[in-house]
Amino acid sequence: MKRIFTLFLLIGSTFVGYSQNYNPPQGVSEFKTMSSKILNTERSYSIYLPKSYSTDTERKYPVLYLLHGLYGSNTDWVERGHVKDVANRLINAEEAVEMIIVMPDAGTDWYGYFNMNGWAYEDYFFKELIPHIEKTYRTIPDKKHRAIAGLSMGGGGSVVYAQKHPDMFSSVYAMSAWLGIEPGGGIQDADEKGKELNRTVLENHAVEFVSNADAETQKELKDIRWFIDCGDDDFLLSINLDYYRAMQKAEIPSELRVRDGGHDWEYWHSALYRALPFVSTGFLR
Amino acid sequence: MKRIFTLFLLIGSTFVGYSQNYNPPQGVSEFKTMSSKILNTERSYSIYLPKSYSTDTERKYPVLYLLHGLYGSNTDWVERGHVKDVANRLINAEEAVEMIIVMPDAGTDWYGYFNMNGWAYEDYFFKELIPHIEKTYRTIPDKKHRAIAGLSMGGGGSVVYAQKHPDMFSSVYAMSAWLGIEPGGGIQDADEKGKELNRTVLENHAVEFVSNADAETQKELKDIRWFIDCGDDDFLLSINLDYYRAMQKAEIPSELRVRDGGHDWEYWHSALYRALPFVSTGFLR
Amino acid sequence: MKRIFTLFLLIGSTFVGYSQNYNPPQGVSEFKTMSSKILNTERSYSIYLPKSYSTDTERKYPVLYLLHGLYGSNTDWVERGHVKDVANRLINAEEAVEMIIVMPDAGTDWYGYFNMNGWAYEDYFFKELIPHIEKTYRTIPDKKHRAIAGLSMGGGGSVVYAQKHPDMFSSVYAMSAWLGIEPGGGIQDADEKGKELNRTVLENHAVEFVSNADAETQKELKDIRWFIDCGDDDFLLSINLDYYRAMQKAEIPSELRVRDGGHDWEYWHSALYRALPFVSTGFLR
Amino acid sequence: MKRIFTLFLLIGSTFVGYSQNYNPPQGVSEFKTMSSKILNTERSYSIYLPKSYSTDTERKYPVLYLLHGLYGSNTDWVERGHVKDVANRLINAEEAVEMIIVMPDAGTDWYGYFNMNGWAYEDYFFKELIPHIEKTYRTIPDKKHRAIAGLSMGGGGSVVYAQKHPDMFSSVYAMSAWLGIEPGGGIQDADEKGKELNRTVLENHAVEFVSNADAETQKELKDIRWFIDCGDDDFLLSINLDYYRAMQKAEIPSELRVRDGGHDWEYWHSALYRALPFVSTGFLR
Repeated sequence: MKRIFTLFLLIGSTFVGYSQNYNPPQGVSEFKTMSSKILNTERSYSIYLPKSYSTDTERKYPVLYLLHGLYGSNTDWVERGHVKDVANRLINAEEAVEMIIVMPDAGTDWYGYFNMNGWAYEDYFFKELIPHIEKTYRTIPDKKHRAIAGLSMGGGGSVVYAQKHPDMFSSVYAMSAWLGIEPGGGIQDADEKGKELNRTVLENHAVEFVSNADAETQKELKDIRWFIDCGDDDFLLSINLDYYRAMQKAEIPSELRVRDGGHDWEYWHSALYRALPFVSTGFLR
Repeated sequence: MKRIFTLFLLIGSTFVGYSQNYNPPQGVSEFKTMSSKILNTERSYSIYLPKSYSTDTERKYPVLYLLHGLYGSNTDWVERGHVKDVANRLINAEEAVEMIIVMPDAGTDWYGYFNMNGWAYEDYFFKELIPHIEKTYRTIPDKKHRAIAGLSMGGGGSVVYAQKHPDMFSSVYAMSAWLGIEPGGGIQDADEKGKELNRTVLENHAVEFVSNADAETQKELKDIRWFIDCGDDDFLLSINLDYYRAMQKAEIPSELRVRDGGHDWEYWHSALYRALPFVSTGFLR
Repeated sequence: MKRIFTLFLLIGSTFVGYSQNYNPPQGVSEFKTMSSKILNTERSYSIYLPKSYSTDTERKYPVLYLLHGLYGSNTDWVERGHVKDVANRLINAEEAVEMIIVMPDAGTDWYGYFNMNGWAYEDYFFKELIPHIEKTYRTIPDKKHRAIAGLSMGGGGSVVYAQKHPDMFSSVYAMSAWLGIEPGGGIQDADEKGKELNRTVLENHAVEFVSNADAETQKELKDIRWFIDCGDDDFLLSINLDYYRAMQKAEIPSELRVRDGGHDWEYWHSALYRALPFVSTGFLR
Repeated sequence: MKRIFTLFLLIGSTFVGYSQNYNPPQGVSEFKTMSSKILNTERSYSIYLPKSYSTDTERKYPVLYLLHGLYGSNTDWVERGHVKDVANRLINAEEAVEMIIVMPDAGTDWYGYFNMNGWAYEDYFFKELIPHIEKTYRTIPDKKHRAIAGLSMGGGGSVVYAQKHPDMFSSVYAMSAWLGIEPGGGIQDADEKGKELNRTVLENHAVEFVSNADAETQKELKDIRWFIDCGDDDFLLSINLDYYRAMQKAEIPSELRVRDGGHDWEYWHSALYRALPFVSTGFLR
């Protein structure tokens, strides 16, 4: 890639006759690991560091946690979501602010974002991952400068994490989100891990959480910026619509978009173009 | 991917409570090779076949030739351009018509779309590749149902191919197109192949072709639908603007878009969302 | 406006140094009246005629019927919807095909699109207005080349008209559609006409129509292209979502979009940019 | 309008079964006049005040100056640009920040934004209008919180005003901008006022200003955020492209967009959806 670019620059500078600064520093994405006592294993995560991170060595940054879907891993947003390219584009155009993006792994060994028998992932996320990130990188470690987003199982994860930890995130952007199941629903013919996943998704039903929220909880939820984005051909559309109606009934402001598409990466990649500006507004206001 | 999808379907049908037909047949992309006498070698190409191709066995389809850029190959549009996903999305939404998409390889062994010493690629394209496609697949083999598009070197290739073969294509969509160089311009410190590339790009200068077109040629060019799409940070912007002005001066209708972005895949991927509807209109009208 | 434009042209040609054809013929909109025996009165309508209509005097055109909302009239789409400007733009860019657009008046003297006591508007629409249009203008008078769209009360009108007359329209584009009420619902403190409106909207409940459709009716509905477009802040969103779910349950393909916005003209104006291409696809395929 | 809205609310609340707060306070636009000593006359202007302005009586706001085109007046952006509706939409979606928008009148009695014999409009703008606004309304009266935008003659006005007063504005958004003429160019067969307009546009040639800028001036220009937006069918496209290339040559960062369209209100109305977020970013960063 490097060589190609260099050659193109030469071509460019030759016949264009003038040059903008073609290769200013750009944000990068990296694969990292950390050790988890709670999960008793090494965990991977991916991280995007914005363009000024390496040079502006005193500056601190807001953080977006960006979650993958069922059977995915921390590499998905990098390799198929093209998160680095999208973030660089939007940041260069000032449509998003410089931010760190953390992509955890809730898909290797186990899958799911909640506490399961033998795999306390939610504990890991809040007690180990976030502290690790905030110790290792120059973050602004407060609610206003933390946001969460995700696709499918990770969309459900981001909504539920913010419902249960409303002091932690300023904005939530949920794509094609898996927001709950009925008893007996979820993955069929599931193995032990799949059964645990079903159980914990049922237990953390995002629609029921909103419907049952008391005045105090509603007030906390109103202090978060919410965005639901789901395709009109997505098999999860219906529960997303239920969730939005529950939010309206509870008078908790939120945004809804139903765009063309299904449960696929073209949808999520395009959603990223909306999610980064949305969470940026939360970081700024 | 298959297994994931099946499991998701089960989840979906369980808690959504009703089903649309979640897995109708979709278009596929394949890697193929053909033998070339002109180039005296085996050549690769990629092909996208739309959803009804395998079941509607009498139906014939229009064809889009989609060209890669310098140092690329026939796999680029498949692997980074996500051509299958984009085409399926647009065709399902009826924003593009079902079409075959052919992605040739002008980047292995040699690079460049024009006839070079020892590598007559343009001859191969018109005398072997197109005939091979039209013999092997159910195409509608006329000008109206043939279009061409490409990025960078392939954007230049598509414009020049249509300029020189105006009876062959109804529409041209050029992305970040390399439309010409000045004497001494092009790739610097080039090896023999690079020098040949420079020579042939200079020889096939798209702006000069338009500026020098006589009345007859102008008339032929007016019988093609032209679209130029180039980012405002692209080092090739200037020559694209020159080209558009030359087209306006010659009163040859064409479309111009300058969108946010540079010389990169986020730009070309998003351009595909515009190119497929544009060439579809040419196939239909 | 004429004088301004002329002067601008001079400015333009002076310093641009070349000219595209700046004032090719463009589509026009006109206000017309017709006499109705059924309603026993003179009725207004507005009509948009595309650019080639006056010169291509043998050509016949598809027709879109475009309905206004409650308390509106046939002038709304012209004066606030800027239908002429939008249609000209899209047709010039070949994103929509040349079509005639008819905007009836269901808001003067009475309001509502259904048959009411003393005001058989639906009869007027199908027995007098459509025949009058097809006699007076060069239309292609078949299902494929007829489409219907509308906003709010007119969105409901377009859906219900197509449900009850499935042989008449190829495409329906409903914006912020009023698709039904509950008993006792609708306009409160209504006068006689308002009560009639409530009664006929309840009687023509679009969601119930779909839910109760038998196999034969479902088959007819599948032979129409459906599009629902409603803002996330629209007070009619919920019934639009119910309608879409009923369509999914009945396995009748349809499109849904929920975009940012409420029950207002910025929404409907932008919807027109989607509606005209959508109905064009129906005219072409 | 009031009555309609009330009735719709009743309909809505009846069958939707729950309510979001349907009529929160919204921004308003007003027509105002002020007295000018420099022009020796009463001058009109229009003003948009955002939703919190009347209730949040201590808060101060950034200001956008939004200029009309040749033969227009301060009412254009209100009546055809729908500035209130667009601003309310974008502010409610948090895509733009709450701001005051001032639309001056440079089209009644005279036309043009520069100092002409007998009509020192530029002096009026900087010495009377801005001070009047900042005294009369709760503005944040510094460079960062002031922006300027405009269409055609007003697009040229905004660019030139910022070139000559770089300490005054943080952002400039120029739509279809009239950025200069050649000697003898401009309005032909002009009366005295038209000749003065030609003279002053030539004198304030925006492209030459950039091309001739010394290092100090370039540095000042780099401290402004620039955006050029011009349709591909606009007769002013060519000078806009020249201007962008001059900016690139001088290495002054700026944005360029060429979208589909001509010199018309559909273009400028849609440009407003981009201009308000763009200047908002300048107010915030």
